[in-house]
Amino acid sequence: MPDYKAFRVELNDKIAHVQINRPEKVNAMNADFWAEIVDIFRWIDDTDEARVVVLSGAGKHFSSGIDLMLLAQAGSALGKDVGRNAEALRRKILQLQASFNAVDNCRKPVLAAIQGYCLGGAIDLIAACDMRYSTVDAQFSIKEIDMGMAADVGTLQRLPRIIGDGMMRELAYTGRTIDGDEAQRIGLVNRTYASQEELLAGVLALAGEIAAKSPIAIRGTKHMIRYMRDHRVDDGLEYVANWNAAMLQSADLRVAMAAHMSKQKAEFAD
Amino acid sequence: MPDYKAFRVELNDKIAHVQINRPEKVNAMNADFWAEIVDIFRWIDDTDEARVVVLSGAGKHFSSGIDLMLLAQAGSALGKDVGRNAEALRRKILQLQASFNAVDNCRKPVLAAIQGYCLGGAIDLIAACDMRYSTVDAQFSIKEIDMGMAADVGTLQRLPRIIGDGMMRELAYTGRTIDGDEAQRIGLVNRTYASQEELLAGVLALAGEIAAKSPIAIRGTKHMIRYMRDHRVDDGLEYVANWNAAMLQSADLRVAMAAHMSKQKAEFAD
Amino acid sequence: MPDYKAFRVELNDKIAHVQINRPEKVNAMNADFWAEIVDIFRWIDDTDEARVVVLSGAGKHFSSGIDLMLLAQAGSALGKDVGRNAEALRRKILQLQASFNAVDNCRKPVLAAIQGYCLGGAIDLIAACDMRYSTVDAQFSIKEIDMGMAADVGTLQRLPRIIGDGMMRELAYTGRTIDGDEAQRIGLVNRTYASQEELLAGVLALAGEIAAKSPIAIRGTKHMIRYMRDHRVDDGLEYVANWNAAMLQSADLRVAMAAHMSKQKAEFAD
Amino acid sequence: MPDYKAFRVELNDKIAHVQINRPEKVNAMNADFWAEIVDIFRWIDDTDEARVVVLSGAGKHFSSGIDLMLLAQAGSALGKDVGRNAEALRRKILQLQASFNAVDNCRKPVLAAIQGYCLGGAIDLIAACDMRYSTVDAQFSIKEIDMGMAADVGTLQRLPRIIGDGMMRELAYTGRTIDGDEAQRIGLVNRTYASQEELLAGVLALAGEIAAKSPIAIRGTKHMIRYMRDHRVDDGLEYVANWNAAMLQSADLRVAMAAHMSKQKAEFAD
Amino acid sequence: MPDYKAFRVELNDKIAHVQINRPEKVNAMNADFWAEIVDIFRWIDDTDEARVVVLSGAGKHFSSGIDLMLLAQAGSALGKDVGRNAEALRRKILQLQASFNAVDNCRKPVLAAIQGYCLGGAIDLIAACDMRYSTVDAQFSIKEIDMGMAADVGTLQRLPRIIGDGMMRELAYTGRTIDGDEAQRIGLVNRTYASQEELLAGVLALAGEIAAKSPIAIRGTKHMIRYMRDHRVDDGLEYVANWNAAMLQSADLRVAMAAHMSKQKAEFAD
Amino acid sequence: MPDYKAFRVELNDKIAHVQINRPEKVNAMNADFWAEIVDIFRWIDDTDEARVVVLSGAGKHFSSGIDLMLLAQAGSALGKDVGRNAEALRRKILQLQASFNAVDNCRKPVLAAIQGYCLGGAIDLIAACDMRYSTVDAQFSIKEIDMGMAADVGTLQRLPRIIGDGMMRELAYTGRTIDGDEAQRIGLVNRTYASQEELLAGVLALAGEIAAKSPIAIRGTKHMIRYMRDHRVDDGLEYVANWNAAMLQSADLRVAMAAHMSKQKAEFAD
Repeated sequence: MPDYKAFRVELNDKIAHVQINRPEKVNAMNADFWAEIVDIFRWIDDTDEARVVVLSGAGKHFSSGIDLMLLAQAGSALGKDVGRNAEALRRKILQLQASFNAVDNCRKPVLAAIQGYCLGGAIDLIAACDMRYSTVDAQFSIKEIDMGMAADVGTLQRLPRIIGDGMMRELAYTGRTIDGDEAQRIGLVNRTYASQEELLAGVLALAGEIAAKSPIAIRGTKHMIRYMRDHRVDDGLEYVANWNAAMLQSADLRVAMAAHMSKQKAEFAD
Repeated sequence: MPDYKAFRVELNDKIAHVQINRPEKVNAMNADFWAEIVDIFRWIDDTDEARVVVLSGAGKHFSSGIDLMLLAQAGSALGKDVGRNAEALRRKILQLQASFNAVDNCRKPVLAAIQGYCLGGAIDLIAACDMRYSTVDAQFSIKEIDMGMAADVGTLQRLPRIIGDGMMRELAYTGRTIDGDEAQRIGLVNRTYASQEELLAGVLALAGEIAAKSPIAIRGTKHMIRYMRDHRVDDGLEYVANWNAAMLQSADLRVAMAAHMSKQKAEFAD
Repeated sequence: MPDYKAFRVELNDKIAHVQINRPEKVNAMNADFWAEIVDIFRWIDDTDEARVVVLSGAGKHFSSGIDLMLLAQAGSALGKDVGRNAEALRRKILQLQASFNAVDNCRKPVLAAIQGYCLGGAIDLIAACDMRYSTVDAQFSIKEIDMGMAADVGTLQRLPRIIGDGMMRELAYTGRTIDGDEAQRIGLVNRTYASQEELLAGVLALAGEIAAKSPIAIRGTKHMIRYMRDHRVDDGLEYVANWNAAMLQSADLRVAMAAHMSKQKAEFAD
Repeated sequence: MPDYKAFRVELNDKIAHVQINRPEKVNAMNADFWAEIVDIFRWIDDTDEARVVVLSGAGKHFSSGIDLMLLAQAGSALGKDVGRNAEALRRKILQLQASFNAVDNCRKPVLAAIQGYCLGGAIDLIAACDMRYSTVDAQFSIKEIDMGMAADVGTLQRLPRIIGDGMMRELAYTGRTIDGDEAQRIGLVNRTYASQEELLAGVLALAGEIAAKSPIAIRGTKHMIRYMRDHRVDDGLEYVANWNAAMLQSADLRVAMAAHMSKQKAEFAD
Repeated sequence: MPDYKAFRVELNDKIAHVQINRPEKVNAMNADFWAEIVDIFRWIDDTDEARVVVLSGAGKHFSSGIDLMLLAQAGSALGKDVGRNAEALRRKILQLQASFNAVDNCRKPVLAAIQGYCLGGAIDLIAACDMRYSTVDAQFSIKEIDMGMAADVGTLQRLPRIIGDGMMRELAYTGRTIDGDEAQRIGLVNRTYASQEELLAGVLALAGEIAAKSPIAIRGTKHMIRYMRDHRVDDGLEYVANWNAAMLQSADLRVAMAAHMSKQKAEFAD
Repeated sequence: MPDYKAFRVELNDKIAHVQINRPEKVNAMNADFWAEIVDIFRWIDDTDEARVVVLSGAGKHFSSGIDLMLLAQAGSALGKDVGRNAEALRRKILQLQASFNAVDNCRKPVLAAIQGYCLGGAIDLIAACDMRYSTVDAQFSIKEIDMGMAADVGTLQRLPRIIGDGMMRELAYTGRTIDGDEAQRIGLVNRTYASQEELLAGVLALAGEIAAKSPIAIRGTKHMIRYMRDHRVDDGLEYVANWNAAMLQSADLRVAMAAHMSKQKAEFAD
């Protein structure tokens, strides 16, 4: 595992802990961030030992979103022809989206642990994770509206599937800040914790629980749930039948069954 | 802005206030209502100065739904041939749906303020709005089931995306009346208010907040969220990239950025 | 109505009560169960007098899910060629899914009444019902993860439309047991009851209410809501226009209208 | 039927003949054209006596496509803000598209009769018709590519469903002109005729044949085929089952059956 | 294999030959036909030895379509309530469709051999087959239009994917009869033969060729092509990756590879 | 532009000529091939000067498809657990597909020039190109069926949209070899040439024609046609409206219009 500038990455007990690591910049997402996150999640995807991911932010805040320098640069790189500018911007946006698609597409569950600010691009990021947990006093805001733009790296695409449609629109139109309590009430986070320490401990414990399950079963389950976000129930049923046609021939079922019979903990291969 | 028979429409401070105005008939939706609402929302769509819409009902109730006279007329207009009747009914229903599609398709956010009765067709109507707010003692009921018919102007189509599937079915099968509190709990309304006055004041304040944002950003955001109601996440990401390819070349970003830097309120062109 | 081995079925007051009836085996789903449920729901679909269905479990528990003997048998029936095994498994899974599709596709509403254990395959089953009600102390768990497999008879396909995406993933990855209270909070059940007796009384009362409505309207409403689970809003609007083009020519509207006028209870033909 | 500036419209023997009538301008599509075509097809849709439509061009050519004056005007109406321009252009394009959607959505079959030039916007137009017939020496070209733009009123959307994908791309990228023979070979037209007179006579005869069929059956058939352009086979089967659930109760089946038995020509009501 | 009334079924050399066998009734599709075809294709699906199907008609004609007695019965079974009639008709149509879905869904390729009349319902039937072959003088007609109804058992749903859109509409609106030559030109049949004997010999030879291929590969190929009829290219690519994830572990690849190396004919297990 | 092992790439007159360059191996697709093609098409996508692509094969044949060594290696890399093998195979197939997706997704038109053998994987490749041209005596075969597998890198997904459904199945089930003439008749190639020299000259001339058009218009047109392969007509119309909202503000329209007025050749910026 190489070194990263915008992140600190560790792999312990089958849990990959990915930490945004620019606390002095409120973990703002700079060019390094957008490039490295793709590499990190490709590495996780390819590393059998990593079975589950925890994504957190170093320091007092999760992240303040995209680094405004990046936006300014993109603006100043434009030329005179509106059409050619549009082509360039379109490709740039698709490239930024690819960074968070890497999180969404990761074959292993990603748990976000959020404290302090979680603003703008940070909402786009956590919307691409599997589950979200926060401190009670975390602060969430779809900040893009105040930059004069529609959010374009995932919030408007993924969040409506997670929280209610009516509140989704209110938050997106107003940029209103909500805390952990309200976030839990509307389904944005699964659970809140009193402090950052308890948050991280709680999320790592949950990650450990997931890491102990059959990796084949966990990856299949994630794949199915993601598939259902965009497909019909009948297609989903047929899809899982195809999938399990191969996966039920894996040893993991026998391992699980034997453990169940002997009342012992199952040990699954990576 | 012309005069309307079933509505009172005002435009102040960039907020279009559309009020159903047949309080003596519990704001029942008559022929004027269905025709005028299309014109009103086309006018709002075409009027740059109108940035956000508040939809309310004059008097003690929001609306009791479709005027039963209309239904009776539709019934008596039928002929002898079942097939030709079916064609005529189909076209009539599509025409009524178009009235609420005008609300749903409006490029600007529509906030419903609901007090008293909100029954039958009124549920179809508020399901086509962006957000819903009500008094604590408002009364909501999917009344169509008691008319011996499946709701056909939007409730069954739009509401399942807004409230939970299980409760959706219970309310649609039973026509059970719920109050503002339960409506908030299941996500039908975003917030409740103690009285009609507080309700209107609260919703207008929220509308004012939205009206102060970049109109380009607000319209783009609404468009994206609506798009996601019916499309895949990957299609949505590509869609917003196309959209912002043009919109990020707008002046609104520079206005917003400048305001952010100078800590002043941004002023956006209509 | 024939006799069943795994079920007890009764039809009273237009309500079909389908009870899983292997209490000594915690209502585990054996071969009889999977075959008979198809016949039962086909019979209900074909029987005009049955207007609504209550699905419950005899004894202290709703159901512990698939009978492990069945799984073991499926495993031991495999041959040497991975490809031919995959074909056989795929067809077997599709066949099991068909048993719960029979519930989902039933033209009449199905209300699940759940007490005690509701584990693994039992979650797949209740996800195919229209609404779910439980005792406060019922215990729900997506148990498949602990058998080393992704759930493949409906939970992963239908549940994400019913409960929130974030909690859906947590429950599916961990197999965590939740009680009736939490189930209600996340939208899995509509209401909880203090005891099994109150549960059954409550659900039968609700079923009775539904049975008194126009059967044409109830079936149309169910059909529309199911349709919207997998289709676009514009397709749904057009669909209901086609549907009601025929159904609004039914006598049920006149019956309902007359009852409304005379303030009497409407009596609808089966 | 009112008078039109850009068209001549006649209704004889249940056939509505819609003729583009600006022969001195090679039937170029000016502002009148785009507005009137919507009214004409709405009128046809609402007029029971009109059972089928023939669309042709007066003079030596079918049409040279959009009037270049219109394009120039649209260009000069743009302001300074790229974002607001984009919004205005988007709405303008959608409005032009609506003119040809009126043809596509017409409940009655539309047969295009094409001689001479059929260029640019004229291809978009005939792609919205049900069938196309031409003289042997007609000249077809997707001319938009030479105006420096992607065709945006229907050619790129509808034509790939009509002609082969490979040739579609060649014609769209090169703007190459093809004659009636090649048009028939690739499926763009159904049949060619030696002269304009024979063409019109042939198409009117075919239209007459269609006008003699059950209008209920013709409209249902068109509706189904259009539906299949964009939907799955399983959805289409269910859709036609809903449709015919009403339409098979029409008198037209009995009329057709009786005519079949008595070996006489069936006479259907409008 | 049981005896059938409307069919003769044989299984030789891995080819199931299914012959409609009511030549004295021009192979009209009666109640036996619709019921038995489901059983026959289920039997073929379950019988490993049957690797490919030839579907033909005994006597001078392939089939004249649905037996008019059936239609008449369906009409006379209707009651007084339009809504309840609609429900009954809808279910009846879905049931008839299921008979041809059994052909379409069959895991093994179905080759239709067509001589003489192929009218109405017979077009619906051959549209559900994989490939179609005919004599030069076969006669095809979408006859439903002359019964005053839109075809509702598959023609309008499946044929547009097989022949060109423009000619599809002409044939469906007019019921025009085309011969084998024109059928080949528009892609309805793959090849024509001079006589019924040559037709059957030719189709059986082709079936024999297919029967000699790996059954795993043939079934996978059919499944993929059917899948693409209704799905996106990206979904299709992912689907085949899932499928082959299991199937490439089959012995058939090694058998094929070994045969390829040794220049000998591969022999695959059923 | 770097050097490639399996390809020779040149850029002249705005035409990128990509030539498979392993003539001594019948241009079989080895590991270098699959990796380099991604880089090449990314380079083309990023290089403004390259406006159109010609894809050809060096020597007497276009390509014999995948190198059998690669398949053998993939087989020998498998382990003991069927489930983990399935995961590995799935990822491998997705990776191979990505190589041809790079061709399909390229923003610039790709013209395939085909002589001699075009077998197995080579069909998958040309199905990802925009247009196909061949010598009269080229030989096409969906060879995968004879390797005991369903084609999984694009043929079964993309070809049904290009050639007729009935012939598609025949070719996929039998692996029958067709020549250039038949390929043209079924729409697989747009045109045939007598010799390899004429083929290359013809295709380069066509490419030159395309390279002279507005790059903005060409890329937009390709994007739209690709979009329509997988989307509805209404979605496509809305999509092109969004796209042209930006692109009609490009200078290319004015350049084209000016050239049109002055009867001179338009010169567009890259």
